[in-house]
Amino acid sequence: MDRRANRLPAVAWRDGAVELLDQTRLPGEETVLRCADVDSLVEAIQRLVVRGAPALGVAGAYGVALALSDPAGVEAAAERIAAARPTAVNLRRGVAHALAAVRSGGDPVAAADAFAAEDAAASDAMAAYGLELVPAAARVLTHCNTGALVSAGGGTAYAVARAAHDAGRLARLWVDETRPLLQGARLTAWEAARDGLPYAVLPDNAAGSLFARGEVDVVLVGADRICADGSVANKVGTYPLAVLARAHDVPFVVVAPTSTIDLATASGDGIEIEQRGAEEVLSYGGVRVAPEGAAAYNPAFDVTPPHLVTALVTERGVARPVTEETVRGLLSTDP
Amino acid sequence: MDRRANRLPAVAWRDGAVELLDQTRLPGEETVLRCADVDSLVEAIQRLVVRGAPALGVAGAYGVALALSDPAGVEAAAERIAAARPTAVNLRRGVAHALAAVRSGGDPVAAADAFAAEDAAASDAMAAYGLELVPAAARVLTHCNTGALVSAGGGTAYAVARAAHDAGRLARLWVDETRPLLQGARLTAWEAARDGLPYAVLPDNAAGSLFARGEVDVVLVGADRICADGSVANKVGTYPLAVLARAHDVPFVVVAPTSTIDLATASGDGIEIEQRGAEEVLSYGGVRVAPEGAAAYNPAFDVTPPHLVTALVTERGVARPVTEETVRGLLSTDP
Repeated sequence: MDRRANRLPAVAWRDGAVELLDQTRLPGEETVLRCADVDSLVEAIQRLVVRGAPALGVAGAYGVALALSDPAGVEAAAERIAAARPTAVNLRRGVAHALAAVRSGGDPVAAADAFAAEDAAASDAMAAYGLELVPAAARVLTHCNTGALVSAGGGTAYAVARAAHDAGRLARLWVDETRPLLQGARLTAWEAARDGLPYAVLPDNAAGSLFARGEVDVVLVGADRICADGSVANKVGTYPLAVLARAHDVPFVVVAPTSTIDLATASGDGIEIEQRGAEEVLSYGGVRVAPEGAAAYNPAFDVTPPHLVTALVTERGVARPVTEETVRGLLSTDP
Repeated sequence: MDRRANRLPAVAWRDGAVELLDQTRLPGEETVLRCADVDSLVEAIQRLVVRGAPALGVAGAYGVALALSDPAGVEAAAERIAAARPTAVNLRRGVAHALAAVRSGGDPVAAADAFAAEDAAASDAMAAYGLELVPAAARVLTHCNTGALVSAGGGTAYAVARAAHDAGRLARLWVDETRPLLQGARLTAWEAARDGLPYAVLPDNAAGSLFARGEVDVVLVGADRICADGSVANKVGTYPLAVLARAHDVPFVVVAPTSTIDLATASGDGIEIEQRGAEEVLSYGGVRVAPEGAAAYNPAFDVTPPHLVTALVTERGVARPVTEETVRGLLSTDP
C-alpha cells in the first residue's frame, strides 16, 4: 500500500481538525476542506463533501474529537453530528464508537483511528475474497462509486477491481456513468485514473451492447442494504445489469461488508424505494435539458433478487449461492 | 389532426425557402431556420438542425427546389444536398425523388409535397396498426425520439403513443432520457408536453425499477435498420429494454416503416456498430463531468435479436412473431 500513502484520503484527522477531500469538486479539483469545529463538519456532511456509508462513519468518529471543545458540551455536539444525515446509520455508528471512548475517559481520536483501521481491514479482506472470483484478463463492469472515496480503505466492489489490477488480472474496467448523479463518470473514473487502471466510461444504457459483444467477464457492484433473503438494494441501474448478466451467463457479484446485511428486512418487498427530486434528472451542473414543467421518475436505488446474484463477497467470506441460509451463515462466522 | 395544424412542423416549404424547426435549440427555444439557398440547407443538415431519417428525406426533396437556382446547376447542387450526411439513405432518397420530377419537366415542390404526404400517411398507418397492440390504461415506455420531429407526419413509436392518448388509452408515457445525447429528455418530452400527454422522464437505468414494480405495460421503440432475420438496430439502450421486457413478460414492439427493412443484411452480425466521440459521454449538456484523459465507450446503437421482439409494426401491417418469413411477408404486401 506504500505507493498510495501520499494520496489524499476521503477523511483524515490532522492538526486538530477533520480534513475531507471535497467530493463535490471532483474530478475538476482536488481540494481538502478543513473542519475545525462541529458546525463546519455538520455543514460539510450535509453538502455531501464526504459521502458513502463507511466514510461517513469515520468522519463521525473523528467529529467527536471536535465535539469535545464545543460550547454545547460533547454529548449534545456529538448528537448534532450523528443527526446530520438521518438515514446514514454508519454516521451514527461512528459517532457512538468514539463517544463511548470519551465516556470511559479515553481518547476519541484513538477510537476513531481504530474505527477507520477496522474499515480499511474490511476493504482488504473483501478485495482478497473477491479477487478469487475474477478470471485472468478480466473485463469488469461496475456501477456507481465504491472505492476509496467511500471508505477508510479501498472500498468494496472497486477494491476488488483494483486488487485484480494489482494482480495483473484486469484487462479493462467498464465504468457505468451512473445517472443521474454521475458517480461513475465523476468519481470512479477519477479513482481509476489515479490508480492507473485501464478503464472506459459508458452511458449506463450501453452496457447491453457490451454484454452482447461478449466484452464483460464479471460484474462487480456494491450494496446499500442486503435483506435476509439475499435481495440487494443498490444504486438504481444495478438490477438491469443483473438481468443482462444472467441473460449472457456472466457472473454478477455483490461486494459489501456484513454491516450492510439487515436481517430485519425479510425481502426486497420490504424496502421502500426513495424517490429523489426531479431536478437531478432534468438538469445537470445547472444546465436544464428537459422542457419546463416536465415530470421525472427518479428512484435512488433498485432491488436485485438473490437468484440473480452469483455471489456475495463480504469481509467474512463469500456466500454462494446467495440464499437466506448462506447470508445468515456469514453473520455466524467469527469476524 | 386539425388541432395540430398551427404547430411548427420539422420541415416546411414557405415563400421560396426550406424552413426547419431548429432541433439544436429545443426544448429551450422554438425557432425556425429559413434556408433560402443550397449552402445554408447543407450547413443546417450537417449541424443537425433537422434529424431523423424521414424528416431528412423531406428536407432533401424540398432542397431540390433550391438547387434549381444554384449557380452550379441543379444536378451538382442536388448532389451536394444528398451528400450532406453520407449515411442518411433517406436524404438521398428524398433528393432523388424530387430530382426525377425536375428531369421530367415537373415541379420539385409538388414532388416534395407528395413525398412528405406519403411519409405522413405511413405515420398514420403505423399509428393505427400499433394502437391495436396498446391495452387500456397503458403505461408505455419509449426510448429516444420517434415523433413529429423525425417525420413529415406523427413519426413511428411516438405516433402510436399519441394515438393511444387520443383514444383515451394512455395512462403514462415513460420517456427514457436516452443518454448520451438526451433525445428523450430534450425532444420526446417536448413533443409530449406539446401534445398534452401524461409523461415522465427517467434516467435510462431506472427502467429496470419500473419493470420490477409492474409499471410498464408495453415498450414502443423505433428502428434504424431491420435485418432480413428481423434483428433490429436502434438507438443504444434499446436492447437492454428488450431483455428487461422479456424477463417481465411485457410486450416489446418495434414501430418502423418498411423502408427500414434491409434484406441485404442477413442478421445483426452484419451490422457494424458505429462508435461515436468520447466527448458526448464525458460531458453533460456542455458541462464536463469526467476527469481529463478519460476514455469512453460510446456505441451509437445496439442490436435486438428477433426472438425478443413481440411485434414489428409497419405502414403495411404487423409482423408477429418476427421471423425472416413474416418480415419478407410485409414487403410482398401491396402498399
